[in-house]
Amino acid sequence: MKKLRVGVLASGNGSNLQAIIDASLSGDIDVEVAVVISDVENARALERARKAGVPAIYIAPGPRRTRLSPEAEKEYARALEERDVEIVALAGFMRVLHDDFLCRFNGRIVNIHPSLLPSFPGLDAQRQALEYGVKWTGATVHFVDAGVDRGPIIVQAAVPVLPDDSRDTLAARVLEEEHRIYPLALQYIAEGRVRVEGRRTCIEPAEGPVFGNTDRRGPS
Amino acid sequence: MKKLRVGVLASGNGSNLQAIIDASLSGDIDVEVAVVISDVENARALERARKAGVPAIYIAPGPRRTRLSPEAEKEYARALEERDVEIVALAGFMRVLHDDFLCRFNGRIVNIHPSLLPSFPGLDAQRQALEYGVKWTGATVHFVDAGVDRGPIIVQAAVPVLPDDSRDTLAARVLEEEHRIYPLALQYIAEGRVRVEGRRTCIEPAEGPVFGNTDRRGPS
Repeated sequence: MKKLRVGVLASGNGSNLQAIIDASLSGDIDVEVAVVISDVENARALERARKAGVPAIYIAPGPRRTRLSPEAEKEYARALEERDVEIVALAGFMRVLHDDFLCRFNGRIVNIHPSLLPSFPGLDAQRQALEYGVKWTGATVHFVDAGVDRGPIIVQAAVPVLPDDSRDTLAARVLEEEHRIYPLALQYIAEGRVRVEGRRTCIEPAEGPVFGNTDRRGPS
Repeated sequence: MKKLRVGVLASGNGSNLQAIIDASLSGDIDVEVAVVISDVENARALERARKAGVPAIYIAPGPRRTRLSPEAEKEYARALEERDVEIVALAGFMRVLHDDFLCRFNGRIVNIHPSLLPSFPGLDAQRQALEYGVKWTGATVHFVDAGVDRGPIIVQAAVPVLPDDSRDTLAARVLEEEHRIYPLALQYIAEGRVRVEGRRTCIEPAEGPVFGNTDRRGPS
């Protein structure tokens, strides 16, 4: 099977990146991480990529704190296209992307968010969940559109909030599911099984035995 | 154990009422349904109550469609207090309650909502969930405050959305969990185990074997 070429944008630690790299190197998913790009020169994510033999690039984001400058964004796009990236996976990438970039990779950008969207969009979703007092939260892999943490949902996992949870114990429990569902969602895309209808997605049945069939928590 | 006296307000079919009645009559929960009041004269909920030997009253709601008139609301409160109701449980009660009533039963009104709040408050939460395209939804029992479908959460259950779900198949799957968690939440209250801190609740550990220990889906 031809591998899906994925480019990952990451600003930080890159543990989701690591989960994707591990699943791709072990052959669990039909994905090749073609490039990792960061807006942070010493991001751990870049180190992880290099260690795995994946091209790792720092591209300066420009002067603003929460977005890329238009010039920087063009450079990001160019670097992705040069490596024939089919899917752009955001993994803790802390910059909002503009319309130009979104159009260029229209319907081909995915993100992971540490809540059961539409609950708790935005920053520190785990703390938001804890402070709201929900008994269940989770993680969501979704396509990126112009909204913040909106866009059609590909996979969600539900995660319990336990009585003694701190922000960090809850975040760790959610992260385990993130590491499971991000590779799973990419595999669904690699297999051409994700059909988008309006803002709903449908995962078409697999033809053979596939990664993810052992999904413990129900639907994906 | 002294039984918790619960008054139920219901406008419709009353299947959650039935789940509460069944659990109380079987002795699974330490609850006595002291009265059922409806704003709909021929509501099935009233029939269900009468069949179970529970006092069932129709109190005319007044001229407005979505709220009780102030006079009607006073009558509701009187009818509940006359029967020494400790907890008011809303079960498909289609009227907004005013501050007077909320103050009178402050912290003692509970409601059930067919979603994982804060996602999908308001009407037809199941259809909202389906149209948004989430892969998980659920049900929430919460205390009622002045907000709509807000207030501290007592129990939630997560429910998968399946690929072929219609609004009705999804609603049926959610309803099963509603019937499980509404009695469970009332039992937590009956046992004095629900501690509210700000907008979070904590269910204190049980002292002995209790209803709900067989909870299949994690925390409550």
